[in-house]
Amino acid sequence: MAKYAVGIDFGTESARALLVDVANGRELATEVYGYENGVIDEHLPAPDGDVRLGLDWALQDPADYIRAFRQAVPSLLATTGVAPEDVIGIGIDFTACTMLPTTADGTPLCLIDDYRRRPHAWVKLWKHHAAQPQADRINDLARAREEQWLPLYGGKISSEWFYSKSLQILDEDPDLYAAADRLIEAADWVVWQLTGVETRNSCTAGYKAIWSKAQGFPKADYFGGLDPRFGDVVDAKMSREIMPIGQRAGVLTAEAAAWTGLRPGTAVAVANVDAHVSVPAVTVTAPGSMVAIMGTSTCHMVLGDRTALVEGMCGVVEDGILPGLFGFEAGQSAVGDIFAWFVENGVPPEYHAAAVAAGTDVHAVLAREAGKLRPGESGLLALDWWNGNRSILVDVDLTGVLMGASLATKAPEIYRSLIEATAFGTRMIVEAFEAAGVAVNDIVTCGGLPERNPLLMQIYADVTGLELKIGGSPQTPALGSAMFGAVAAGSAAGGYDSIVEAATRMARLSSTSYRPNSAHKAVYDDLFAEYRTLHDYFGRGTNDVMKRLKSIRSRALAVGGAD
Amino acid sequence: MAKYAVGIDFGTESARALLVDVANGRELATEVYGYENGVIDEHLPAPDGDVRLGLDWALQDPADYIRAFRQAVPSLLATTGVAPEDVIGIGIDFTACTMLPTTADGTPLCLIDDYRRRPHAWVKLWKHHAAQPQADRINDLARAREEQWLPLYGGKISSEWFYSKSLQILDEDPDLYAAADRLIEAADWVVWQLTGVETRNSCTAGYKAIWSKAQGFPKADYFGGLDPRFGDVVDAKMSREIMPIGQRAGVLTAEAAAWTGLRPGTAVAVANVDAHVSVPAVTVTAPGSMVAIMGTSTCHMVLGDRTALVEGMCGVVEDGILPGLFGFEAGQSAVGDIFAWFVENGVPPEYHAAAVAAGTDVHAVLAREAGKLRPGESGLLALDWWNGNRSILVDVDLTGVLMGASLATKAPEIYRSLIEATAFGTRMIVEAFEAAGVAVNDIVTCGGLPERNPLLMQIYADVTGLELKIGGSPQTPALGSAMFGAVAAGSAAGGYDSIVEAATRMARLSSTSYRPNSAHKAVYDDLFAEYRTLHDYFGRGTNDVMKRLKSIRSRALAVGGAD
Repeated sequence: MAKYAVGIDFGTESARALLVDVANGRELATEVYGYENGVIDEHLPAPDGDVRLGLDWALQDPADYIRAFRQAVPSLLATTGVAPEDVIGIGIDFTACTMLPTTADGTPLCLIDDYRRRPHAWVKLWKHHAAQPQADRINDLARAREEQWLPLYGGKISSEWFYSKSLQILDEDPDLYAAADRLIEAADWVVWQLTGVETRNSCTAGYKAIWSKAQGFPKADYFGGLDPRFGDVVDAKMSREIMPIGQRAGVLTAEAAAWTGLRPGTAVAVANVDAHVSVPAVTVTAPGSMVAIMGTSTCHMVLGDRTALVEGMCGVVEDGILPGLFGFEAGQSAVGDIFAWFVENGVPPEYHAAAVAAGTDVHAVLAREAGKLRPGESGLLALDWWNGNRSILVDVDLTGVLMGASLATKAPEIYRSLIEATAFGTRMIVEAFEAAGVAVNDIVTCGGLPERNPLLMQIYADVTGLELKIGGSPQTPALGSAMFGAVAAGSAAGGYDSIVEAATRMARLSSTSYRPNSAHKAVYDDLFAEYRTLHDYFGRGTNDVMKRLKSIRSRALAVGGAD
Repeated sequence: MAKYAVGIDFGTESARALLVDVANGRELATEVYGYENGVIDEHLPAPDGDVRLGLDWALQDPADYIRAFRQAVPSLLATTGVAPEDVIGIGIDFTACTMLPTTADGTPLCLIDDYRRRPHAWVKLWKHHAAQPQADRINDLARAREEQWLPLYGGKISSEWFYSKSLQILDEDPDLYAAADRLIEAADWVVWQLTGVETRNSCTAGYKAIWSKAQGFPKADYFGGLDPRFGDVVDAKMSREIMPIGQRAGVLTAEAAAWTGLRPGTAVAVANVDAHVSVPAVTVTAPGSMVAIMGTSTCHMVLGDRTALVEGMCGVVEDGILPGLFGFEAGQSAVGDIFAWFVENGVPPEYHAAAVAAGTDVHAVLAREAGKLRPGESGLLALDWWNGNRSILVDVDLTGVLMGASLATKAPEIYRSLIEATAFGTRMIVEAFEAAGVAVNDIVTCGGLPERNPLLMQIYADVTGLELKIGGSPQTPALGSAMFGAVAAGSAAGGYDSIVEAATRMARLSSTSYRPNSAHKAVYDDLFAEYRTLHDYFGRGTNDVMKRLKSIRSRALAVGGAD
């Protein structure tokens, strides 16, 4: 009898559940649950819609996660006719850092009437950006104390991460902070709801909460330096028991079994993060390959058998991606977002009309025309900093540049130069890894862009000189979660005893891959040399014009009103 | 009885004739004659359409100029009812350098059957750009010989100018060169046709043919160094008698009187150039004001009472603009062209739709939105080098830059930053004049853009810190020509004895002017400092990335065919 695993990928607007054949990774069905309360960024949901949120806030409703279990998983079984007893394991992945305050028994504070109307009681979504002042304090103190962990995070802790958000709660609603017995990643919280057991996964602990297997968390005197009331945050509100990725967190409770239609006792994997869970799902389980999850932004994952200081990386975590290996993460803060910006803001009507006429989209029209150009033919060069630079410069104040424009410059040329700029950005990251002794021999991609844009893939291959492969599943993170579900079940139950084994059987690559054209590579080597010069000139302090423009902009906006 | 003067402005596609009341500059009527053969840039006109032209060629038909006299001037009289005897003078201005080969009696070689099918027999229009190899030789030799005149032209003689075009004739059709008794500016040629007398004006001689009142033309051994057959070009094909602007060239012949419907003996002014003739037409007759003729490109004119070496100027000519003064010329090679490029190539459909809905054009929609922004608010900064940089860098290989882009950047912000960039370019020129001791206390504008774009005018005032005025006539060059016509007639005939006097009576300014807002000026001082840093970094050799991008582009295009 075939055995199955369920993977659930909790995203920003919806959760996606996938039922997979454990033997071969065949994907039987997908169910999507769109969160009833979506992203909460203007005011709290009814009946508390009068409570308005501040600028840069972004919340979620934990009840939506439970509704996802209750709706998506039973539908999978109904659609496929698979029997609950043949589902051996369940795994989940989540956005991160997405975190919430709960009571000791895991009840979210926002689901308790006394706290419902307090914005800090809700889930802070990854893209909640209102904790920048807290992040600034965290970084200032870490630099002042020369904390050894800071370089492991590219020298900067993000406003999106765990302590920034936690400290914002303490700063702005200290009573609520005091009422929170637990502060926990939503990833771990949903696993808690499934298993009845609170666990903490090594991935979010490592990448978002400054934990390392060797050193643990930052010391209490560091946290106390931020705020005396914050000194005991780890021991009072978190846990020092961190479970490596690939372990079993527990088994389904009767209640969770009732939600999902699965059997009580079904194995549940330790929680994971969407990007990180994708690595084995695209067959990568050993050092040597970079996994690039390419969508609105790009997340780069590389495995290593020892730690290393890679310039501008987002983090390095032992057991953070696969047990027994060091997981390196880097990122480009805007990729698909830049192309989308251009299509929306920089493309004249003729290309929109051509897309309508051809029954396609503007990207396809631009890519078709841009594909007729040879490397270097446009004379354009761009710096891909429309949303700052995450790796390797770790600087949100950098901005986009387009150079080489003439009166003959056309939109497809700009489109191509923007793709090339993001490829140069990727090459900077690849070279940073290699400079730190972490090998990158090929790039395995997933995330949406790779399937949609063959021109982009060929340009990336030509720019980096590396082969680009594509993950074989359209549901990479959910597949990865299902694979961890199968590992949580173990071979005795019909699953696997390691994620490497699961990847061998359940993960696959697309038959399409992109190899570098050596003539193109030679031209791009010349263009990349120019990119690097400008990258260093504008990005490493020789000319901080971008920061000064931002500062002039802030002053202009601060004037207020017309003048 | 009122007295009148006629001014005719010979442009690129048409000639524009204006009838003006000499007493007060009142413009009674305008007539436009569109050239029958327009700009000849693909093949010769019928019946010789099988003769194709090379890349970058641009010719005109001298018969079109005569047709302009025959059609436009009689129409002026018919429309207004002004009697021919009340028209006391006629003046013309032309594009330059626009030149042609003729016989000794002034017959254009292209109007002679033996030469008709030879492209070099035709008028080479100012924008004929096929003489670049000749310009390169002219510059190389001048640099090698350290010719003293070279710095007066910003260190570079243009492919558009007189000797570049003449040498191209000699190189490519030496028999035709030999057959040409005269090589002459079209400006002087049409005056010759009106008066029966060959004259040469100081403006084109000075700005386009390297003549100076003090030094005359370059020496024969310089020309001989370019080609032994070219050594006597001045004495064999040109003239050393150069008439200052503001003189009478002669009077209408009976034949020309018949063409125009004017009386034989009507005074005809020495020929002039469209940009230069505009200076007194916007009331400027003394040092201290910059005249900016702002259209697709901008031409800057400043008067001085002594010569000076202004960085990157296009030329300084004694008597070149007004008799008795030194006329300085500088230029920005693309201004309105950049905004037109942007509207055509960089503005998304919503703004086009808004323009249609409002019954206006896209410029107006963008300007309205851009006008709501405060200086510095967009965070953008551009280098206005979409068509290279004429002044002050004199470098056609520089290209446009846009910096500061974010995912929130909108088209009106870019539009504003492009306007600002051209304003910064103007400020660089103003500062170059002032650094050379040539005062610029205000800017008087004309040329089309100033009336159409109040936002642009305010930005220029705020960026330069100078008051911007606008010439009062919509037909500035034709008015200037009519003024010179009135001076050619002299006071005895009811005209004036000097152009200063004519300007006092006939020229005027618009009642609208733009004064700098000091708060805006302060912000723009900061932005201009950034512009200058980038201008020098990319434009003065620190980082020649733009030239290398052009060279990479040339190699890419040379590969040929898809690969």
